[in-house]
Formats: sequence, C-alpha cells, structure tokens
Amino acid sequence: MKTAQATAEAAIRAQVDSWLHAVLAMDIEGIVSHYASDIIAFDAVSQLQFKGVEVYRKHWQACLAMCRPGTMIFEMHEVHVTAGDDVAFASALIRCGGTGENGEEKAGWMRMTAGYHKLHGTWMVVHEHFSAPFDMETLQVLDVQP
Amino acid sequence: MKTAQATAEAAIRAQVDSWLHAVLAMDIEGIVSHYASDIIAFDAVSQLQFKGVEVYRKHWQACLAMCRPGTMIFEMHEVHVTAGDDVAFASALIRCGGTGENGEEKAGWMRMTAGYHKLHGTWMVVHEHFSAPFDMETLQVLDVQP
Repeated sequence: MKTAQATAEAAIRAQVDSWLHAVLAMDIEGIVSHYASDIIAFDAVSQLQFKGVEVYRKHWQACLAMCRPGTMIFEMHEVHVTAGDDVAFASALIRCGGTGENGEEKAGWMRMTAGYHKLHGTWMVVHEHFSAPFDMETLQVLDVQP
Repeated sequence: MKTAQATAEAAIRAQVDSWLHAVLAMDIEGIVSHYASDIIAFDAVSQLQFKGVEVYRKHWQACLAMCRPGTMIFEMHEVHVTAGDDVAFASALIRCGGTGENGEEKAGWMRMTAGYHKLHGTWMVVHEHFSAPFDMETLQVLDVQP
C-alpha cells in the first residue's frame, strides 16, 4: 500500500517536473500534452475559467507571447503531492515574473493546484488552478512573500 | 470499478455539501471539522498560504466576523468531482458576497478547488484553494461572470 502510494507520488512529481520544463522552454505543445481534452482550468488572469484544452491552449499562447525567452522567471517551491491509484493532486508556490529591458527583475508569488487523473494508463491534468491572493479592501493583488 | 468510483464521487459530493451547509450557517466548528490538521490552504485574500488547521481556523473566524447572518451570499455552481479510492478533488464556481445596509446585493464570482484524502476511513480536506482572477495590467480583481 505504502509502496503503491510512493510510486504514484513519484509519477506525479515526474509529471509536474516535465510540465515545468515545457513551461520554461515556452514549448506550447509540451505544456498542452499534459492536459486532458476536457480540462477545467482556473487561471490567475483574464477569465473565470477555461473549459477544454483548445480554449486553454489559446490562453497559454497569449500568455507566452508576452514573455521573451531567457527573461521568464517561473520557479516552483513547496511542491506537495497527494496521490492514489488513479487520482492525485499537487500544490505549489510559484515565483513568477521576468526581467525588464533594464535588467531589473520583476516577480511575484502565485499559488498552483493541479488535479490529475490516470486515463488509459497515463496521468493527465484534468484540473488546474493558478492564483494570487488579493487585498479585501482595495481588491488589488497582494505582493506577498511565502 | 465504475461502482467504486461512483461511490467515492457520491461521498465527496456529500462532504462538499456538508461543508457548504456549515459555511452558510457560519458554523466555524462545522467548517473546520472537514479539514485535516496539516491542511495547506490557499485562500483568495490576505496571505499566500495558511498552513495547518489552527492557522486556517483563525483566518476563517476573521472572515466570518465580517459577515452578518442572513446577509451572506455563498452559492456553489458547476461542481466537478474526480474521485479515486482514497484521493479525490473537487472544483466549483462560487458566487460570493452579501447584502448591504440598503438591501443592495454585492457579489462576485470566485473559483474553488478542494483536495481530499481518506484518512482512517474518513474523507478530509488536506488542500483548499480559493481565488478570483485578476487583470494583468491593473492587477485588480476582475468582476467576471461564468
């Protein structure tokens, strides 16, 4: 039982790593290959939700178009995984941003949750949730540290 | 297999409903009874994360103190559940707000993800994530509809 759980957790950590490498490489096909066709995504910006991989792919493309290679900051910290036989989820903090024209780093902290389902033997992301906390008074995103 | 999955999904939906009833009743003990002691919570406001049920309980108490009974709006929509033998997660949209002194309704749409783990035979929330999307230019929370 413990061993099966450890194996599943290792498999999810490998999936998270592989997805992170695709994001850092700005490889849209690599990113999207982790997503189930009927993914429900709650992204940090723009819309309440993105339903289905094609809609979410377009959003990712728009987001990546705003980054320049080599200037993107996308670090994962405090990755926690809860994994069962065919359902799992991961949470993490992400330091996200970029380096401006003047070489100045501009980054903020986000939160990520990814929900996995093993479909036909392959772990796929069926749900993803990114966000930043906001201030209740100003409704402005908070610049907070872990 | 299908039957076990359907049973687990029904159990998670019952947990979500029971949690929702506790929130609507502003019953802090009822809310907290759904959480594992080592919960990692990403709430929509105030902080990046809340680690452990006691820290999260205090945050919930502070949030509930801002609501008056009978004026809270907290509606769940589009609840999706992915459930395995002992790991599951749920996502939902939440219409959240209240009625002001003048009787005027003020509410916005949020997103929720809850991660469940069956511990000693009982489904517990080990991870929770609430958020609202923001505008990338203004960093202001978006007033968006589903």
